[in-house]
Amino acid sequence: MARLDYRQAGVDYGKIDPLKILAQQAAARTAGNLRRHGLTEVAASRGESAYVVDCGDFHLASITECLGTKALVADATRAITGRTYYDAIAQDTIAMAVNDLVTVGATPLSVHAYWAAGGSGWFDDEQRARDLVAGWAAACARCGVAWGGGETPALPGVVADDRIDLAASCVGIVRPKSRLTLGERLAPGDAIVLLASSGIHANGVSLARKLAEQLPLGYGTRLPDGSLYGEALLAPTVLYSPVTEALALAGIVPHYCANVTGHGWRKLMRHPAAFTYRVRALPPVPPVLRFLQQETGGDDGAAYGNLNMGAGFALFVAPGDADAAVRIAAGSGVGALVAGHVEAGSKQVVIEPLRLVFGAGDLHVRA
Amino acid sequence: MARLDYRQAGVDYGKIDPLKILAQQAAARTAGNLRRHGLTEVAASRGESAYVVDCGDFHLASITECLGTKALVADATRAITGRTYYDAIAQDTIAMAVNDLVTVGATPLSVHAYWAAGGSGWFDDEQRARDLVAGWAAACARCGVAWGGGETPALPGVVADDRIDLAASCVGIVRPKSRLTLGERLAPGDAIVLLASSGIHANGVSLARKLAEQLPLGYGTRLPDGSLYGEALLAPTVLYSPVTEALALAGIVPHYCANVTGHGWRKLMRHPAAFTYRVRALPPVPPVLRFLQQETGGDDGAAYGNLNMGAGFALFVAPGDADAAVRIAAGSGVGALVAGHVEAGSKQVVIEPLRLVFGAGDLHVRA
Repeated sequence: MARLDYRQAGVDYGKIDPLKILAQQAAARTAGNLRRHGLTEVAASRGESAYVVDCGDFHLASITECLGTKALVADATRAITGRTYYDAIAQDTIAMAVNDLVTVGATPLSVHAYWAAGGSGWFDDEQRARDLVAGWAAACARCGVAWGGGETPALPGVVADDRIDLAASCVGIVRPKSRLTLGERLAPGDAIVLLASSGIHANGVSLARKLAEQLPLGYGTRLPDGSLYGEALLAPTVLYSPVTEALALAGIVPHYCANVTGHGWRKLMRHPAAFTYRVRALPPVPPVLRFLQQETGGDDGAAYGNLNMGAGFALFVAPGDADAAVRIAAGSGVGALVAGHVEAGSKQVVIEPLRLVFGAGDLHVRA
Repeated sequence: MARLDYRQAGVDYGKIDPLKILAQQAAARTAGNLRRHGLTEVAASRGESAYVVDCGDFHLASITECLGTKALVADATRAITGRTYYDAIAQDTIAMAVNDLVTVGATPLSVHAYWAAGGSGWFDDEQRARDLVAGWAAACARCGVAWGGGETPALPGVVADDRIDLAASCVGIVRPKSRLTLGERLAPGDAIVLLASSGIHANGVSLARKLAEQLPLGYGTRLPDGSLYGEALLAPTVLYSPVTEALALAGIVPHYCANVTGHGWRKLMRHPAAFTYRVRALPPVPPVLRFLQQETGGDDGAAYGNLNMGAGFALFVAPGDADAAVRIAAGSGVGALVAGHVEAGSKQVVIEPLRLVFGAGDLHVRA
């Protein structure tokens, strides 16, 4: 099979980025608007995964995230198995928001649902609607967040026919303020603890869909472990807030956190400073990601540079806290390992077992 | 011209509502999730326009809202005049969120943008992108909110080709907590102060689009005042947070607030209790709404029951505060009038100048 890359799969990041940079610059200039209320933003949160406002005796954190195109995988796999998978993609959507929010040290408190359908008819399918609601509520329970409300508009002409655009916003507080993790404490010697992913999560889905188009059996293809390709893709994203909350209860404040989403392991160098991130141990790779890599002809650079490859979230902690962090994650039902450490040195991610290096030029997340 | 109603215009509220009710019920059951953090929701905010969590010494309020289909009007009118109007619909989108958030007494602090395009190509149109960014930033400045960030995904297959799904989430705090306006203080004798709208805002747009299809000149039709139909529809929604903040500074806490959006003036009886809302004076009707009513053959019941007809937001204040509220609104650049008052009696809106009555059965906003 010919090699596939993201540009072929319909997402051209080169085209989105100029607007994104324009928007980020304009957004940064709005910080002063808070002065009217006697408040200030936490400037270091610009470019991080959630936005933080200093409200005096606490910090306010907020985020809006979308699922992307994973609902198309659910729709197509349903045609094979009869299950809707909207409970699974509901969890994915909440995970996109919650897993970003907790990177700054916030306790997520409430989420709003944004479910924009291509027409009123979308809501006629009762099983799908019930699964969406049930999965959303279950994910809220797992994260200890209240589902505050949301929007369920029908937008014919804007959203495609019989499709739905799923997104979530999440709000939380950082209290005590010492829980804020924007990276000031990150230092050479810190341990890199990787938390296990369940599969593709919600990043790399365009590539996975393109592959489905090229496989003779599409989403019905059996993986080596016997699972269906479509179902394996739809394993819901791990929710990491139970881990970050358990760490806080145990008195462990990470020095930094990175949610491993788009850009895969390049996100390990998300922190703005120049450090070398040296990885010496790898987590198990979920079979669906290994399959995706093999079938699309991607080398390890393409795979680890774009997909989570088994690591859904990275904690950077004081070396003495690393083993405890692994135990606490396991106690929250999330696999973890001490994968490596932070070193002084040029900005790069060095994955020793794969002889792979990502340099600073490989990641652009800030304007 | 034949009469148009919402069902013909492609939005069937009867089909959306069962899911909406299911979601509202499931969401209400998540309140207990907050106990894990030692917090509680403000239960009275369920069914109101923003969700409120009691965080001890302050309340946290949040909301996510979408623009709907108004971007389609901008796209079509641009083909006539050459202007993009994305600055205007950016303000509309923020208004949808901010104007809801302030109904509970919150000071809006930050917004996140959700701009989901049908493909990467959407972002190639630099003028449109720049207008969107500029309008978004300007609306944030007007509301004193920081633009915290957002999502700008390309979702081919989910969002329609060359379209964009625009939404905003907004977070605020109620501090001091005595600013909370969930309606406990609403009482007979309270004055109804109506704040002026600028036009259709973002509700009734499906109907307006359907009318454009039926007019020989479409969005290029001239209204009696000489303006173009499309341009008049695109007058940006009034932002009401400068008014609610100015009221707070003056020590006026409304007894209740209603953002007049879908369901038009039926929203005046949004409060859960049974009161009669008697209106004796009407605000001027924006020409585009008068035109829409006349051309679609709608009677006053259809017009005032679905469109804002000049009243974009309702403040319910102590009778002694009514004149001051009008002055303060004017000082913030927003027209206002004391339109009527609240009475003991069955739940209804009585619009005396039009001999029009909306009963409790005409409005369903709660599960």
